[in-house]
Amino acid sequence: MNRKMVAFIIGRIAVIEAFLFLFPLTVSIIHNEQKSIFAFLISIAVAMTLGILLSLVFKPKSKVISAKDGFILVALCWVMLSLVGAVPFTVSGTIPNYVDAFFETVSGFTTTGASILGAQGITPSVESLGYGMLFWRSFTHWIGGMGILVFIMAIIPSVSDRSIYILRAEVPGPIKGKLVPKITDTAKILYIIYIVITLLEVVFLFCGGMTVFESLVYAFGTAGTGGFAPTSAGLSVVSPYHQIVITVFMMLFGVNFNLYYLAVLGKIKALFKSRELWCFISIFAVSSTIMTLNLVMENIYGIADAIRLSTFQSAAIVTTTGYSTADFVQWPMLSQSIIFILLFIGGCAGSTAGGLKISRIMILIKTVRRELNKLLHPRAVKNVQFEGKEVDEATIKSTSSYFVLYMLLIIVTFLLLSFDKFGDLQTNLTASISCFNNVGPGLGLIGPTGNYGGFSVLSKLVLSLAMLFGRLEIYPILFILTPSTWSKRHF
Amino acid sequence: MNRKMVAFIIGRIAVIEAFLFLFPLTVSIIHNEQKSIFAFLISIAVAMTLGILLSLVFKPKSKVISAKDGFILVALCWVMLSLVGAVPFTVSGTIPNYVDAFFETVSGFTTTGASILGAQGITPSVESLGYGMLFWRSFTHWIGGMGILVFIMAIIPSVSDRSIYILRAEVPGPIKGKLVPKITDTAKILYIIYIVITLLEVVFLFCGGMTVFESLVYAFGTAGTGGFAPTSAGLSVVSPYHQIVITVFMMLFGVNFNLYYLAVLGKIKALFKSRELWCFISIFAVSSTIMTLNLVMENIYGIADAIRLSTFQSAAIVTTTGYSTADFVQWPMLSQSIIFILLFIGGCAGSTAGGLKISRIMILIKTVRRELNKLLHPRAVKNVQFEGKEVDEATIKSTSSYFVLYMLLIIVTFLLLSFDKFGDLQTNLTASISCFNNVGPGLGLIGPTGNYGGFSVLSKLVLSLAMLFGRLEIYPILFILTPSTWSKRHF
Repeated sequence: MNRKMVAFIIGRIAVIEAFLFLFPLTVSIIHNEQKSIFAFLISIAVAMTLGILLSLVFKPKSKVISAKDGFILVALCWVMLSLVGAVPFTVSGTIPNYVDAFFETVSGFTTTGASILGAQGITPSVESLGYGMLFWRSFTHWIGGMGILVFIMAIIPSVSDRSIYILRAEVPGPIKGKLVPKITDTAKILYIIYIVITLLEVVFLFCGGMTVFESLVYAFGTAGTGGFAPTSAGLSVVSPYHQIVITVFMMLFGVNFNLYYLAVLGKIKALFKSRELWCFISIFAVSSTIMTLNLVMENIYGIADAIRLSTFQSAAIVTTTGYSTADFVQWPMLSQSIIFILLFIGGCAGSTAGGLKISRIMILIKTVRRELNKLLHPRAVKNVQFEGKEVDEATIKSTSSYFVLYMLLIIVTFLLLSFDKFGDLQTNLTASISCFNNVGPGLGLIGPTGNYGGFSVLSKLVLSLAMLFGRLEIYPILFILTPSTWSKRHF
Repeated sequence: MNRKMVAFIIGRIAVIEAFLFLFPLTVSIIHNEQKSIFAFLISIAVAMTLGILLSLVFKPKSKVISAKDGFILVALCWVMLSLVGAVPFTVSGTIPNYVDAFFETVSGFTTTGASILGAQGITPSVESLGYGMLFWRSFTHWIGGMGILVFIMAIIPSVSDRSIYILRAEVPGPIKGKLVPKITDTAKILYIIYIVITLLEVVFLFCGGMTVFESLVYAFGTAGTGGFAPTSAGLSVVSPYHQIVITVFMMLFGVNFNLYYLAVLGKIKALFKSRELWCFISIFAVSSTIMTLNLVMENIYGIADAIRLSTFQSAAIVTTTGYSTADFVQWPMLSQSIIFILLFIGGCAGSTAGGLKISRIMILIKTVRRELNKLLHPRAVKNVQFEGKEVDEATIKSTSSYFVLYMLLIIVTFLLLSFDKFGDLQTNLTASISCFNNVGPGLGLIGPTGNYGGFSVLSKLVLSLAMLFGRLEIYPILFILTPSTWSKRHF
């Protein structure tokens, strides 16, 4: 393991985080929030000190990074980001308990949007945070959405000769590739697309009458498919126009960014050819339709409201954003069941969405179909095709294994939560699934009007881990938790 | 497809079912239950007529059966058995609604033990069935436990030259093999072991003070890992001695029968070498211990009661028997969560237990471990080992696909149940999981004191299908539901 190079890069990222703190610091200064200004200055000092120390102490002789180093680097980097990112909340006193602040920050960076805020008598309300802190809370979504290491690759040329391992470990989806031959360019293209669509959303929101602050905060939550809202009432207080804009943008951020790149290059056909995209849109359409019919037939809403609320909710859950415009735990059983199932799915690979990813589910189903065919015609040889290309056996195997691990880890998370006396079965189960898939809300006590504040410290740490597991797609976190990774013979 | 041979064998099985009706008929005669006697006579007539018609109309020219024929035969055979097996309930008027009777019979043959009986104002009580019907209800467990086609192979020599396909389709577990070179002998050995252990249990129960009727009925439920009890109070009315005897026998029937055969041959070492057996016992021990501690610490029971009740419940759920001695939906959250997780697992392969099967879970975990290793050391080639043998790639692939299908079908079942207004999320989810894994009870409204009577007709049919899917391990039922199976070009 190239320990020095890993530590060196983590140091670099700490310095970048120090710079990122400048944005919420500016917001705090504009709104003259003394405590927050102080807290961000302290946080910048902490991040800079850590960054400089790591860069000074570890001078890498070689820039070569192995596949394993890539995983470990990404995992440690995200843990460090969250540990430091939680500092301003605690230092400012807005979230006095550091574990709570850590949970909130992990939830931010992993674009989960699960919040501990608003538990009466336990945690402060969302509104008590103030502008600067609310900005930082939502900004972590935006940073985490595309990935911080992708960012570093975009701005610092040739961090490593084999930085593909970093990209592989951080960018979600079953099949990883580069858009263009150079990784740095790929990272740059991804970030440019990301920034452009985000700005577009900000403009749309602002033109509808939101303040600049609100437009930015909601756009960050949408772009990262995060879900933190700056009010405890979620998006029920936002106008129908804004709800519709956000619905559209949630879906846009759930699409594979490669398709946007191809579209910019004029290959519009690629959009129509993408099976994953069609599948994504179909899932959205079918679940919205069922929910609309269900809500209308049960006389919960009129037809117009039902369409607006159910399309919003379908988009919010399938893209793993987790915003909510209505308290869906009060909806009829059928709609809740649809939401439960959507919790697992997630958006397209190569988007900012979490979850299993649609491409992964498609490959799994195609593999199953091939196995069924083999049972009937043992000698038939058939390939698994995806997006017009043959999926190699290694990808098929790793996708199956990923699914097994995914289910196992959700079950383990659920089991660990059961030691807590806070939740019932429904709450604990959907908390595990929702955090692992980086959605945010669940059913039961953690619905749109509920929160994660009532869980025990242990449960909050378990759920933080689950969010990291989900965002980094299991392997990086699994490796840093495996004792053999740290055994001496590997150094 | 050898349509004639398939129909011919189904005809034979119908005749066998007619003979099987003689047992409950005898019980009804002993207890002088007029309506039941009449119902069983009618049922015998129905089964005989069907059997003779099928045998006369379809005279197979060839006895050759393909892999596909094996699946279709097994599926149709189980559906026929259940359709005819439900006749006595409806004809006697004890379960007037035929769909309810069908659900109960499918639940019996698949050794699920989910009951529609006892829903106030909807379905009759368990006790109202009378001796003959209660005997038949539990006897279906015993028949279904080892499999009816295994039975036919044991008694009718050389049904087909390639009857291994039938054995493969009916006997559960990821790796199928013959104990001895001849299939007929394998089937015979399995049935002899089955009968001997069942008789042993009957003796133990009888010596503890149960009547012959009770001893038989409880032993049938244990042997098939079924779970139908002859009272609505379940096994809470049974003495602690009997509860302990049943705990031990539930575990015995959850063990791979191959091990008993090896033990009889003097290869006792094989028992200690079996990793699956150790894993099975460990799961039982760990879950019992956690539940005991939880129940004692929450002051629900004293230590002795807690041990007895939690070992009983762990054994009942992990072996997919589903008997209950306490209303565990009243237990604390942690114990309920353990039960929830146990619902998935199931006993050893080659036992009468349902569920995923421990060997399948072990192979899945070992495959995942190999994939993780491959991520770190891309060039390392490692085999997956199970019980000291290398697992071939075909088995690894089919096991992974099985798991994906298993989860998909549970989700689909859950979704279909959501259209019903009866259950909440917890009830519907555990109903899907419990029926698919052939356990029986679940949480929420279908706990030990609840029942499936309140579900709609559609839901009852969906759950009946789920039970058949689970018992026959997916493929047979999937094939008969696939339209292409019945397209002309295959005939």
